[in-house]
Amino acid sequence: MATLPITFLSDYGYADEFAGVCRAVIARIAPDAAVIDLTHGIPRHAIEVGAAVLANALPFAPPGVHLAVIDPEVGTSRRGVAVRVAADDRVLVGPDNGLLWPSIDSLGGAAAAVDVSLSAFRLEPISATFHGRDVFAPVAAHLALGAALAEAGEEIDVGSLASLQPSEPSIEVGRVVAHVVSVDRYGNASLDLADRHLPETGLKLGRPLSVESEGAPCDAVFTPTFADVEPGQLILYEDSYRHLALAVNRGSAAEVLNLGLGDEVTLRPGD
Amino acid sequence: MATLPITFLSDYGYADEFAGVCRAVIARIAPDAAVIDLTHGIPRHAIEVGAAVLANALPFAPPGVHLAVIDPEVGTSRRGVAVRVAADDRVLVGPDNGLLWPSIDSLGGAAAAVDVSLSAFRLEPISATFHGRDVFAPVAAHLALGAALAEAGEEIDVGSLASLQPSEPSIEVGRVVAHVVSVDRYGNASLDLADRHLPETGLKLGRPLSVESEGAPCDAVFTPTFADVEPGQLILYEDSYRHLALAVNRGSAAEVLNLGLGDEVTLRPGD
Amino acid sequence: MATLPITFLSDYGYADEFAGVCRAVIARIAPDAAVIDLTHGIPRHAIEVGAAVLANALPFAPPGVHLAVIDPEVGTSRRGVAVRVAADDRVLVGPDNGLLWPSIDSLGGAAAAVDVSLSAFRLEPISATFHGRDVFAPVAAHLALGAALAEAGEEIDVGSLASLQPSEPSIEVGRVVAHVVSVDRYGNASLDLADRHLPETGLKLGRPLSVESEGAPCDAVFTPTFADVEPGQLILYEDSYRHLALAVNRGSAAEVLNLGLGDEVTLRPGD
Repeated sequence: MATLPITFLSDYGYADEFAGVCRAVIARIAPDAAVIDLTHGIPRHAIEVGAAVLANALPFAPPGVHLAVIDPEVGTSRRGVAVRVAADDRVLVGPDNGLLWPSIDSLGGAAAAVDVSLSAFRLEPISATFHGRDVFAPVAAHLALGAALAEAGEEIDVGSLASLQPSEPSIEVGRVVAHVVSVDRYGNASLDLADRHLPETGLKLGRPLSVESEGAPCDAVFTPTFADVEPGQLILYEDSYRHLALAVNRGSAAEVLNLGLGDEVTLRPGD
Repeated sequence: MATLPITFLSDYGYADEFAGVCRAVIARIAPDAAVIDLTHGIPRHAIEVGAAVLANALPFAPPGVHLAVIDPEVGTSRRGVAVRVAADDRVLVGPDNGLLWPSIDSLGGAAAAVDVSLSAFRLEPISATFHGRDVFAPVAAHLALGAALAEAGEEIDVGSLASLQPSEPSIEVGRVVAHVVSVDRYGNASLDLADRHLPETGLKLGRPLSVESEGAPCDAVFTPTFADVEPGQLILYEDSYRHLALAVNRGSAAEVLNLGLGDEVTLRPGD
Repeated sequence: MATLPITFLSDYGYADEFAGVCRAVIARIAPDAAVIDLTHGIPRHAIEVGAAVLANALPFAPPGVHLAVIDPEVGTSRRGVAVRVAADDRVLVGPDNGLLWPSIDSLGGAAAAVDVSLSAFRLEPISATFHGRDVFAPVAAHLALGAALAEAGEEIDVGSLASLQPSEPSIEVGRVVAHVVSVDRYGNASLDLADRHLPETGLKLGRPLSVESEGAPCDAVFTPTFADVEPGQLILYEDSYRHLALAVNRGSAAEVLNLGLGDEVTLRPGD
């Protein structure tokens, strides 16, 4: 049986060796496993951001093992888990703090889960603060080699997995209050508003709208892509994961509107 | 036939999952393709910088597929292309906005090119804003698997490819006006001045010169490497890609001279 | 014989293509070598930090070739070396400036060493400023392919290798003066204090202590992990490499105490 690929996402950043040491641990156990770094640049401890990024990314990844570590409560009684999903041949590995939930949810739900906190695959001695290295990476590597889920830990009730409730927009006639879910390198701000919400909102492609965050409302237009407008103009658009997002062509919507994670944005259809 | 390696350069940065998702798409199509990340840290939308870095790097890379994405006009009518070069067994894949041009030029010119905008290899549904994931990565992966260039898109005239004219220094007796082409992590500033320009300039290895940007002229020396001078001293040197560059031993030339991309620098041979 | 894996650590950062070009050089020579990036985010020219990170990371990596480049004196007479260690089947490759020393030391000492400055494996023409690309990466790649150490350069006396003396804490009754060895992304500050020092210090797990850097002393507690205390509280803990370190739960010890590399910290056991 071929070694499965392992995707890897974390908030470890790039300044430190944390992600690299996890890769080293994987290479030691499963030398043929392809490790696909999704990103290690999730803001520190930002479980919700990491959860959304992971759920967005996984449909583009090959089936295999999906390692994800954002773990502010490492060393406490929070569980580590490995979860097989129903829709595809994928196993997710990480802390049971909601990080994995949106991915599990969008991949058909959990078919089976084990608590890996005391996994036979963990490194000894285990540290109190680096379970990415000592628990999650070795568990992911052994699963990539073909170990059964049941070998990785104690079976648990899938109903007991920590869930994560994403924020929801509030939609009224002529007024949508949405929240910033992520801000990317380009200053584009993705909202908790999806194309399925559009019919209720009155927002229409090609039409103007106003966008208000902290300050005065800004004029914008709902358009397919940045380059449909002049540099510096604000747009609403459907981003590549089918969420609605704000951008400024050749500029930064996050800067112009002073937007950060979780901030409220009010959208009003124009005339 | 063995899967070809894929080099990958972009302005996607490391905070987001963009480069990671492209790697995931490649792994899904061509699981055995080695992906060599050159860098994803090119400044946002800096086509000229990315073009120069790519042209510098490719001669050190194995023949194969060279994926490069800096794409401010994604979603407009700008074409996506795959280009086979004349000098070597290499295919470049990316937006047709000049990014690939200096590499094509230095690798013997384009032998054949196709428009991949509507490639049969693209992902469906295609997004308006993430063609790295939906067009360029899958095209690169299929080419790495051995697909013929003609399978990747519609043949186009190589003469129609977008070119990029690099800046040129102005050289007079006793006075060279050059431009900053890149600034690296160490604050070293590479200029649009190559060793072939040297005879005209009057600048000589081992000799002093003055360097002027915005402020007062600074004394410097033209020397092979940083460590030939005291810490804090400004030098002109030939960098590892055979361009002339400014550095401060253990310091930052970019900071000392307040240099940014495209800035003018005046060099005058000393006595 | 299978190609050996290559770990890679540097201060090249992520904004530039330096690490990527080294990977390209390796892929050209040893296409099947797995390259495990430990990190390229070591602060510029920080040999001591890189040396400590490397020594911490290598025990978790598979045996093979360990490439490390932090090289402020590139282009001078400082040697480049490849060193086989006594304890394990590992060869370290990099500049002979102390960077490799703590790793060599903790892996049983040097069994054999060669000067690779004029290695037959180096690229030609060799640059004055990028020996990572021109010397160390190709030497590492050939060693990964199975070349003997003696083929990589001229044998040298292992006693002539540059050493690095780590800082030492000063321990008196009721008062420990330690130094900051590294600060990670989370603001956790690792000290030059290991668990073997503990008996002399009077510091005890579960007990309070005071921590003083520049300003007024702060109250802290010596605890196994962050999450044992309230958010915002300062702790002393044993980090995942068995050094003592300072952290603030959900905050940054480096910020709260204004700590940088090398800074002195005074710890006093509480009552």
